[in-house]
Parts: sequence; structure tokens; C-alpha cells
Amino acid sequence: LLSKLPDVGVSIFSQMTLLAQETGAINLAQGFPDYDPPQELLQALARRACMPGQHQYAPMPGLPRLREAIAAQVARLHADAPAPDPATEITITAGATEGLYAVLAAVVRPGDEVVVLEPAYDLYGPAIRLQGGVPRYVRLPAPHFRPDWDALRRVLSTRTRLVIVNTPHNPSGAVFSAEDWAELYRLLARTDAFLLSDEVYEHLVFDGLRHLSARQHEGLRERSFVISSFGKTYHATGWKAGYCLAPPALSAEVRRVHQFLTFSVSTPTQHALADALEADPTDAHALGLAAFYQAKRDQFRELLADAGWDLLAVPGGYFQLARYQAFSRAADLEFAQYLAREKGVAVVPVSAFYHDGYDEGIIRFCFAKQPATLAAAASRLRS
Amino acid sequence: LLSKLPDVGVSIFSQMTLLAQETGAINLAQGFPDYDPPQELLQALARRACMPGQHQYAPMPGLPRLREAIAAQVARLHADAPAPDPATEITITAGATEGLYAVLAAVVRPGDEVVVLEPAYDLYGPAIRLQGGVPRYVRLPAPHFRPDWDALRRVLSTRTRLVIVNTPHNPSGAVFSAEDWAELYRLLARTDAFLLSDEVYEHLVFDGLRHLSARQHEGLRERSFVISSFGKTYHATGWKAGYCLAPPALSAEVRRVHQFLTFSVSTPTQHALADALEADPTDAHALGLAAFYQAKRDQFRELLADAGWDLLAVPGGYFQLARYQAFSRAADLEFAQYLAREKGVAVVPVSAFYHDGYDEGIIRFCFAKQPATLAAAASRLRS
Ligand SMILES: CSCCC(=O)C(=O)O
Ligand SMILES: CSCCC(=O)C(=O)O
Repeated sequence: LLSKLPDVGVSIFSQMTLLAQETGAINLAQGFPDYDPPQELLQALARRACMPGQHQYAPMPGLPRLREAIAAQVARLHADAPAPDPATEITITAGATEGLYAVLAAVVRPGDEVVVLEPAYDLYGPAIRLQGGVPRYVRLPAPHFRPDWDALRRVLSTRTRLVIVNTPHNPSGAVFSAEDWAELYRLLARTDAFLLSDEVYEHLVFDGLRHLSARQHEGLRERSFVISSFGKTYHATGWKAGYCLAPPALSAEVRRVHQFLTFSVSTPTQHALADALEADPTDAHALGLAAFYQAKRDQFRELLADAGWDLLAVPGGYFQLARYQAFSRAADLEFAQYLAREKGVAVVPVSAFYHDGYDEGIIRFCFAKQPATLAAAASRLRS
Repeated sequence: LLSKLPDVGVSIFSQMTLLAQETGAINLAQGFPDYDPPQELLQALARRACMPGQHQYAPMPGLPRLREAIAAQVARLHADAPAPDPATEITITAGATEGLYAVLAAVVRPGDEVVVLEPAYDLYGPAIRLQGGVPRYVRLPAPHFRPDWDALRRVLSTRTRLVIVNTPHNPSGAVFSAEDWAELYRLLARTDAFLLSDEVYEHLVFDGLRHLSARQHEGLRERSFVISSFGKTYHATGWKAGYCLAPPALSAEVRRVHQFLTFSVSTPTQHALADALEADPTDAHALGLAAFYQAKRDQFRELLADAGWDLLAVPGGYFQLARYQAFSRAADLEFAQYLAREKGVAVVPVSAFYHDGYDEGIIRFCFAKQPATLAAAASRLRS
């Protein structure tokens, strides 16, 4: 059996979670919280689990009441954009992962080029190649990881089918500004390329910054697939529910593929999420996430201040990047293994986010952890 | 946006469910029960929903305890085959649908031919084409829908990458015998083709027949991907959990793709399913399904006896096929629409299971319904 993905092994996230389990290291590697979803959401799932008549296939694009609740929330949060139509513009997916894959499978044809800004989530490259597409990588320069527009312009051509962006960005936390979207629009307006905007950390933006979605840009909206994650927003990465927002013609293509990828998403899970959204018409939960995660970022940075790490700026997201040249010249994977084994803290080497293993000596800490976990990890790191 | 699947519309299952809702017809179309999963399973999900620490990503191949419980059950039920290794041979998927798609995406390369025995589930063809593969259709002749081995032999070639079989079969209920597997083995032994065996109705075999899995055939096992569905087995089609059983090298390829399709399946759902399996070490639930569904089949057939339908034999599965030539010469889709609108019973036209719409004047009733539902549907049909 010749593999279609011979170079894909166990993902760095799974590897590091395993290493943490083996070594007893504190797991600041894989991006997930060490706390639970809100109690009301857990109770909603428990309630729905016991309710009769809600355990068969949900409609393929998602439960209407969940799509309506999402549309209402998006209309409130993107007040400057037209409200999405729940019937034709929202598709519930088995996590953001399935949403990303469905867009790539729906849009990318053999030979099509897809622009990926690196460092990037490990799914994009292999999922593009599985469609016969050709990833064209453009590097986001450290330490700010903001797009190099000239480099992006040079890679665009008539073969470009899709450009993938991610804001807030994993792993760097970089956040697109209105000017960034305008720049991107100037480049894409001359092409037929679609835009896949991975916005799973949409509510995690700090220091008064505001998340701007691709769909809030009038010119980009009509060519954009926007991916969102209940896993990140509700501290429920294990529930595997997310959604794709796109104009009707684009959503129709996503659904054509979603129908065969998973068909539909867990009915009780969708009901529970709809319950939570309906119970929160002021979006208190989503709007509270920025302060909640900013406090974690600040706590973690303070704990590591003056400890020799070069802590990069973190405008958004779940993750703190750090250069470690004060401690070691080792490759980042080796250094990450050393940290897990010798210091008892598991992290992700940022070279794992580059198709060619490009290594600037940067590691990634996930700070979506309880204060005590962050304190314990920091004290191990300082020892 | 040129579609990659221009001919794929809303699936016949969704269409007919919608028509049933619009017309108030009794829905015997889409294959799902109108009763709930066992109470213990619902309570297990409710319990797991409230448990702290079980709401983040499950391991990518599935929760170890669920895979172990499956391996133990498979070892009991396939006592003549080596027990599967839960670490390397079982992958939990977002329903059988994701399992089928993952196998196709992992195995089928551009230009590869994949043999599909028609009538067939609507996923196979489009999912093959999305990989750049070429479906080669072989017709299962009515009324028994058993493979025509000569026709299958003629379509096999060095380009054949995969053969898909489905037993018990949707829509006909045909069940592979030991001799069928032996025939298939004789044909495949001369090729390098893999086998995808869709066995989601594995526990639904009637009249003392026994389900035989591809993995119970020693020669086929090493080249087989076997797909199973908790949705069918636990009356929980809306939970979207299933699994793929395959030898380690084949499972490794499925996982390479599963990692990017969905990454993992709902953690609380997996725990609840593991709870149910662990609580039933004699497989009373699974082993009880044959009698449970045989009674439904028999009830439905009796209710329709002498009403002018030509009811085909149903050795297994969820569905009763019927010829309607005593009533109409209309195309089966038209006749199905007539039944929904005029008689108040929604069914699926069997032409929907053929890539070319081949129509023999047969419709499909789903009998996975409560006795009262079946009685009401039959009385409408007799009116
Ligand atoms: C699906 S595992 C990866 C989780 C994640 O988003 C990350 O760690 O970057
Ligand atoms: C995923 S909808 C189709 C359900 C089914 O298996 C059928 O009706 O054949």
C-alpha cells in the first residue's frame, strides 16, 4: 500500500501529548484547555442526552435552531456586515477541522495552487495535496508574523485557486487589522481566487484589539469561507463542533462535500450548543473570552519575566511563542523534547508549522490552562 | 465557482425527509429508527456530559477504552478470526460515513478504478470521484441482488485499486454467504486490489442467517477495511460514531486521513459508548437486534400481504423493497412522490441507488419503526 501521504506521521500535537503522558510533563503543547466548558453547557448536553426523539440524524447542514442562533450572534458581532442567512450560509461541521477539509475538498482541483502562509496549522498542506492541489508557501516573518504582501503578490497567479489565512493566528497570535484585509483585497481583487479564513480564535484578541472577520470586508465576503469552532469558544475541543460561514453558492459546494464527509453532526451536541447560544442573547460568554484569556497570557508572561526567555508579543489566540537562544542552540524539536524530559513541561516546536521544518529556535506554549497549571509550569521552567 | 460535484444535489434521503415533513407523510424513507437508543446509553451520555475532565480532544484514533471494548466484542463475535488489536487496527470515526470517506481518500489515487456494486449507497460514487478515482459499476441483479461474479471478473483489471461490498446490503438486505466471500477471494487473490466492506447492518440478519465479515475470511482480511456503525447498532444515527477495522498498515493510512478529516470524535459520546459496551459483556444488545428487527420486518410484510405489492425477500438490514407494477407504470421517483403526497407515506425510489438512474420500478421502505408507525403506514398504503 503506497501511501498518499508518506510524509505525514503522528501529528506533533499528539506526539507531544503522548510524551507529556509518558514523562509526567505538564502539557502546554496541544492546544486545548485544562478546564471544562461552562456548567450550563454541560447541563444542556446532559438534558439533551435524556430527551427522547433527538438522537437520529440532524439535517445535513445542521439543526435549523443552531444555525439560527449562530446567525443571530454573528449579526450582533459583525454589525457592519449583512446578517448571514441560516438556511443557505451556515453549515455545521464536525469541528473546524472538518470545515477546513470540506472547503479544500470542495474548491481545490488537481493542479490548483493554494497559498498557505507559514507557520501554519498542520492540516492545510496534506489536505491540499489530497485534492491534487499544490501548496504555495509564503513565510510570515518573525517576530510579528504579519503577511509580507510583496511575497504574497509574487506567488499569486492564474493558477491560484485559494488563499488560506488564519486570524488570530496559530501559533503566533498575530491578528489581521482592517489595513491587512484591505491589502489582501487589493491583491485578490485582480484574481479569481477564493479565500479560506480560519478564525477559530476569533474571540481571543487582547489589549483592546478587535477581531475582524473576512466577511466584514465587503469585497472579500463574496469569495470567503469563514471557519469557526465551538471547541475553542466553549472550551470543548472534544465535542467536535464548528461551522463554516460562506455565501450561498459557496456554502452549496461545502455542503456537497460535507454530505459525504460526515453527513451531519451529533444531534444532542447541536441542541446543547443551541441551548447555550439562545440562553446568552448578549453574547456575554463570547465577549468575556478576551479578558479571560488576556489574564492567562499576562499571568504566564509575568511568571516567566526575567527568566531568560525572549517572549514574543501575543496579540491574540491561545499561545505564547518564545525564543530560547539564551538556553540552547539546539533544534527546536530537540529543545522541546529536552523541556518535556528534563524540565517537565511539554511544548510544541514551531518548526512543526513549516512544511520544510524551517527552524528559528522558537517554541510554543499553550496558555489555555488554569492559573495553578501555569504557575506550576513556570516554576518548573525557572528551575 | 465550477463545482467538483455538479451532479450532486440534495440527497434523496434528505429530499424525502423534507417531503415527509411538508406533506405530513409517515417517513419510511431515510434510514433511521423512530425510537431512541437504549436508556442505559442515554443515561451514560448524560453522566459523561456532567463529568469534569472529559471534554477535550480524544486521542486521534479514538479513546483507548472504547477501542478496547470494541476489540473485545469483535473477538467474541468473530471467534474464528484473530482478535483485532485496539492500538493499531481500530479507528473511531464520525459515523460510518467518515470511515467510508477516509478509506476512499486514503486509498484511491487519481486514475484508480473502484468497483461499486449497484444499487449502492449514494456516497460511494461522488467520494471516489473527489479522489480522482473512476467508479466501475457492476449491477446486482434483482430480485436477489447477489453478485454476478462473471460481471465482476470482467471489470477487474490492474487498474482496480479497490472493490466496495456492502453486507447486509442497503437497499436490498442481501447477505453475503461464506461461498460469496470465497468467490470474491478467488477473484481478488489475483489482483492487488483492496476491499472496503461496509457492514453497518452487521447485526441485522434474519431467519437464522449469520453475518460474515470480510475479516472472518483469512485471505481477504489482510486487504480489508471493515466499516461499522454505532448509529445503526444503538439506534443512534444522530450520534455520528462508527469505526473502521483494518490491519495495522491499512489502519495507519486511514488514520493519516482521519487526522485531517475530523481529527477525533466527540469525547463524551465515545465514553458513553464504551460504558454501554463494557456493561454488556455477553453482547446481549447486539445479539438481540436480529430478532428485534426480524419482528419488524415480519410485521410490516404481514400488514402489506395481499395488498398488491410484490414484496422482495429481506434476509437482513433495515429495508423492505417492493415492486409496485400492480399499481403504476410510473418512474419510481414519481411513484415515491405520489405515495408521499397522496398516500401519506414517504419512501425512497431505488433508482437513486444507481449512478445512471436505472429504474426497475422498485421502492424502499424503512421498517426501523415502532409497531404503531408500521401499522399506520400500512393502513395508509392499503387505503
Ligand atoms: C487537533 S490537535 C491541534 C490542536 C491545535 O489547534 C493546536 O495545538 O494547534
Ligand atoms: C445519512 S442519510 C442515509 C441513511 C441511510 O443509511 C439510508 O437511508 O440509506
